[in-house]
Amino acid sequence: MMNKIFIILVIIGLPLSVIGSLLHWSAVIMFAIYCLTIIALAGFIGRATESLAIVMGPRIGGLMNATFGNAVELIISIFSLKAGLIGIVLASLTGSVLGNLLLVAGLSFFVGGLKYKRQSFDVYDARHNSGLLIFAVVVAFVIPEVFSASMNETDTMILSIGISIILILLYIAALVFKLVTHRGVYTNNNEDVEKKQEEEVPEWGKIKSIIVLAASTISVAYVSENLVHTFEVVGDTFGWTELFIGVIIVAIVGNAAEHGSAVIMAYKNKMDVAVEIAVGSTLQVAMFVAPVLVLLSLFFTTSMPLVFTWAELISMVTAVLLMIRISVDGDSNWFEGLVLLAAYVIMGIGFYLL
Amino acid sequence: MMNKIFIILVIIGLPLSVIGSLLHWSAVIMFAIYCLTIIALAGFIGRATESLAIVMGPRIGGLMNATFGNAVELIISIFSLKAGLIGIVLASLTGSVLGNLLLVAGLSFFVGGLKYKRQSFDVYDARHNSGLLIFAVVVAFVIPEVFSASMNETDTMILSIGISIILILLYIAALVFKLVTHRGVYTNNNEDVEKKQEEEVPEWGKIKSIIVLAASTISVAYVSENLVHTFEVVGDTFGWTELFIGVIIVAIVGNAAEHGSAVIMAYKNKMDVAVEIAVGSTLQVAMFVAPVLVLLSLFFTTSMPLVFTWAELISMVTAVLLMIRISVDGDSNWFEGLVLLAAYVIMGIGFYLL
Amino acid sequence: MMNKIFIILVIIGLPLSVIGSLLHWSAVIMFAIYCLTIIALAGFIGRATESLAIVMGPRIGGLMNATFGNAVELIISIFSLKAGLIGIVLASLTGSVLGNLLLVAGLSFFVGGLKYKRQSFDVYDARHNSGLLIFAVVVAFVIPEVFSASMNETDTMILSIGISIILILLYIAALVFKLVTHRGVYTNNNEDVEKKQEEEVPEWGKIKSIIVLAASTISVAYVSENLVHTFEVVGDTFGWTELFIGVIIVAIVGNAAEHGSAVIMAYKNKMDVAVEIAVGSTLQVAMFVAPVLVLLSLFFTTSMPLVFTWAELISMVTAVLLMIRISVDGDSNWFEGLVLLAAYVIMGIGFYLL
Repeated sequence: MMNKIFIILVIIGLPLSVIGSLLHWSAVIMFAIYCLTIIALAGFIGRATESLAIVMGPRIGGLMNATFGNAVELIISIFSLKAGLIGIVLASLTGSVLGNLLLVAGLSFFVGGLKYKRQSFDVYDARHNSGLLIFAVVVAFVIPEVFSASMNETDTMILSIGISIILILLYIAALVFKLVTHRGVYTNNNEDVEKKQEEEVPEWGKIKSIIVLAASTISVAYVSENLVHTFEVVGDTFGWTELFIGVIIVAIVGNAAEHGSAVIMAYKNKMDVAVEIAVGSTLQVAMFVAPVLVLLSLFFTTSMPLVFTWAELISMVTAVLLMIRISVDGDSNWFEGLVLLAAYVIMGIGFYLL
Repeated sequence: MMNKIFIILVIIGLPLSVIGSLLHWSAVIMFAIYCLTIIALAGFIGRATESLAIVMGPRIGGLMNATFGNAVELIISIFSLKAGLIGIVLASLTGSVLGNLLLVAGLSFFVGGLKYKRQSFDVYDARHNSGLLIFAVVVAFVIPEVFSASMNETDTMILSIGISIILILLYIAALVFKLVTHRGVYTNNNEDVEKKQEEEVPEWGKIKSIIVLAASTISVAYVSENLVHTFEVVGDTFGWTELFIGVIIVAIVGNAAEHGSAVIMAYKNKMDVAVEIAVGSTLQVAMFVAPVLVLLSLFFTTSMPLVFTWAELISMVTAVLLMIRISVDGDSNWFEGLVLLAAYVIMGIGFYLL
Repeated sequence: MMNKIFIILVIIGLPLSVIGSLLHWSAVIMFAIYCLTIIALAGFIGRATESLAIVMGPRIGGLMNATFGNAVELIISIFSLKAGLIGIVLASLTGSVLGNLLLVAGLSFFVGGLKYKRQSFDVYDARHNSGLLIFAVVVAFVIPEVFSASMNETDTMILSIGISIILILLYIAALVFKLVTHRGVYTNNNEDVEKKQEEEVPEWGKIKSIIVLAASTISVAYVSENLVHTFEVVGDTFGWTELFIGVIIVAIVGNAAEHGSAVIMAYKNKMDVAVEIAVGSTLQVAMFVAPVLVLLSLFFTTSMPLVFTWAELISMVTAVLLMIRISVDGDSNWFEGLVLLAAYVIMGIGFYLL
């Protein structure tokens, strides 16, 4: 049923997105069309990822999903960097971290928890990820903020570049650890779960899944880019500040693909994949997208230091502390989802008023 | 023996409180009388709560105790709000959080630990509560502090109101979660403990317990209110600042009822109740008393934003981080109690000197 | 092989240190000689400690090592205090905390992890230590920083003295807890490990170990003190700031003894000892060396408050949060070591640029 609605939305929304953008229709109308189209495309990404997750195991499936979801963000941010909109880039990085940790994980825990009384996920992965969240957000983002207060611009930029290189190297090391040297070392607890999942029949084959995933992601990227250009008018119309658009709107729309599939996974009780999407995507934003953007910014006219506003930084740090406390036991329920969502709403109100 | 002393103290203290207040005796003498009376009344509240806890189970028993204890605070704070003493209200909220987390839990762990080498309590409850502590104190209290730095007064108040409504809704959701949807879901570990407690014979019956509890609480409220009016003179006499009186004195006296019963429970090795009193009471202050006061303040001449001083906020945040680290393993001993007490003394010295 | 190199280094380095210092050789050359000599002496300390650890059990062995390692620091700091170099003392305290938590533990986890896929250590000790780390660094160091912002110098000093006394008393209480009242209470999990270790044959006897340990430590102290006097010239030569020398150089050289033996222990899969050295040494610096220096400073012309710079404080707090998150599960691998080392490098770059 939902799948049919998504097919219809894409069949109608995608051409309308192209036509409307060429014919310069009203920005507010296009905003709605773009959003619905992306949500529908997210449905396809969800199904394709799920099929691939069954074929390739929950970890690689989740990793791929995070990659495809963040490709969209990376593209949007590069265009923004080119235009010198550093504030928007940092705000949308913040928004991705908050959106993934609080909104995506919160919705997954909440929706999954409405169906299942208790859901569990890999406690080793949760611990591994929590260490990286502390490293990336609490160490690598906080240090330049505090140190730059008594540094000149050049030294701040050198520190930012140094931290960015270390973040990327550690991100690569994390992949080596997970996929090569310690593949399967920390999974004695849920062997049975994995066995069960391996026995499941994927909806689509490997090739079809990859084609759908690629086509959907490219379409999402195309539509997202157009969407960005409607933000100014929509912001003026609805009274949204630049910061609010960066942190909340770009993040929700830019991560819609992941939202969709994470919640679907949670509803199907595949919490390992849902958590991997939410937290894995956060880590990819913090340890890969953010530092890559810092380094890429060196080739543009305005270089971007890894220095957030205090409101952005404290939001991310408190979100990380909350998510770790809630996820580190490898157990979730509707209430824990609600706590994460409530934190997201509080920060949303804050950024709206700022 | 101790019970007899308490009866004598109440029989002497309660009439003296009424007479002394009417005859305008010296504030310093009345201060001592009020304090002793409240401590004695706390003994009755402890015994009544214990009886009720046996009849109704540790969770409801602890919840009731926290409610009765905080009723006193709520009443004092409403009178202070009416007088426009916003600084004192925020300071006494801070003091309640610090007092419950560090002093009550610290004394419980320490006194209980002197008798028992290791004491254990429900690890699921500890995790559940730790998530809420992070949410309430680290997210909901820190965000308005940081964001209000670049906000005007109106927006700060709007943010405070929004956060207050979310806190109250989440507090209600937490009750639904604990008492309705997930009642008994997270308790597989201590079934035997609960069985044993159910087999215990309560000192008083249900009706007698409720009557004693109600009468003692009303008396505590009456005496506490009088006590507040002695603070100015006592402060001048002993050189205590307003902030110190709010954070330390109001909190100790206002929570004496809970202190008493939590420590008694710990001494009887009922750590589930002791921890529920300390942490549950903290959560009730942060998620219910504080936001209710913010909303009530709208009806008075001076409205109160949810913005603490940095000293208050950092004290609460570090107290929460310390308490979580110490309690999350569901195990306590005298040394862990001493660590919490040491943190309380450090903050006490700080607020005394500030 | 390595042992022979160390013997040769000591036989050559120690006389050269004495001669070079008397003949006023070039500071940069002496710097290199001092460093190599200390590293070689650290090898002896490591072997002596290991022998003693086998004889006396991992806890006492680790404790002794931390004591001997910090004696060096205490001596250097007293000389600096006498010279009124408060900034350097606070910086080297910071450096010891960061060095032990991130560099020593990081190297231990990394090097040990290259040989063993997973290494485990006492989870009870890790929890106990994590509570003390939060208490000492997050409570006792953060509170004076935040409160002193609105305090005069006298009150800041009174607060510092109060906190120092509490820290030392709690440090003594921690020893009583660990060695007297709760000796062996929290060790049900690794009885077999301890049995195995007790069956091992120590390289040296108790007497010989103690003599080597004492002689090496005295030599390290002598060489370290000379090393300090080369810092100014070396700093000018290489462009290092005072803060960088205090935080990074003094800490690395001053803790070389512990670095060496911790990493050797990790390589021999004795993670209990390695972690006890890294974290135990941190706790000794924070709860004993730092407060003793505050109290000793009262006898010198310039008294030292327990107030770090924000860069120092935030570095320590984030290092503690990272280390707790990584160590609290009692399990380590090469990647967790790399994360700690990456955090150390980030902070190192920051202090270099500051």
